[in-house]
Amino acid sequence: MVEYQNGKPDLRITGTEMKHTIYIYKCTNSTIIVEGKVNSIVLDQCTKVGLQFTSVVSLVEFVNCKSMKAQVIDRVPTIQIEKTDGCHIYLSPTSLDTEFITSKSSEMSVNIPIDDVEYKEYPIAEQFKTHIQNGKRLVTVPNESAGV
Amino acid sequence: MVEYQNGKPDLRITGTEMKHTIYIYKCTNSTIIVEGKVNSIVLDQCTKVGLQFTSVVSLVEFVNCKSMKAQVIDRVPTIQIEKTDGCHIYLSPTSLDTEFITSKSSEMSVNIPIDDVEYKEYPIAEQFKTHIQNGKRLVTVPNESAGV
Repeated sequence: MVEYQNGKPDLRITGTEMKHTIYIYKCTNSTIIVEGKVNSIVLDQCTKVGLQFTSVVSLVEFVNCKSMKAQVIDRVPTIQIEKTDGCHIYLSPTSLDTEFITSKSSEMSVNIPIDDVEYKEYPIAEQFKTHIQNGKRLVTVPNESAGV
Repeated sequence: MVEYQNGKPDLRITGTEMKHTIYIYKCTNSTIIVEGKVNSIVLDQCTKVGLQFTSVVSLVEFVNCKSMKAQVIDRVPTIQIEKTDGCHIYLSPTSLDTEFITSKSSEMSVNIPIDDVEYKEYPIAEQFKTHIQNGKRLVTVPNESAGV
């Protein structure tokens, strides 16, 4: 557990094990590096935190965060983003099948590596359009006209 | 403009014109009835407000609201719900083509009339799943496993 860290440019978490859950709470203006393979990483009420991690077995979760960045070095199956404004994820070539679960969030993007140094940014939809189909089913799709 | 109304069971807005925008701000525990045809209705920072309106030419918008209900008597083309928790819309048989634009919101439902007295409730999706398609496109769909 990492709590109330502020302005740390290089907070390194080492000696991790695969059963560990790293809980990062109310940290601001910091960069946190998680080395090794862990079960999950939860970031709760953090602002302007950069996270870099090697590998996560289940999920990385952002909840009630602002202006976050996260970089995957190896793999993560799921990234969950909830009540968060600003969340930019940088994937690795070995983690292009990561799934994103989002709710009540905005300004999210997935950055896909195009070579060793460059990424291409793709915004994640944050506004949706719902209509009634045949009077008895709702259909919801991303609202493309919002420019997402 | 209606502001800071609290605990009014039957606040009636009459003598409306088609060019009017009704702006309802920081009202709580009230029921507001808008008679006639207006251009749009905006509800901003309201809690536990019931809105009943006859007809709206462009849109009804909820922003930063909580525990809202709205009943359409005749027609509305678009209902926009933003940063709102709890928003239950009761449609009329003449407004089944209403489109819903939602973002950063939860606990929303559309209630479709099945006869003169009964409605069937359909929840609007609030959690979404995004994956990368062919390494170069994001696809976002409602997350069905969330029970929505």
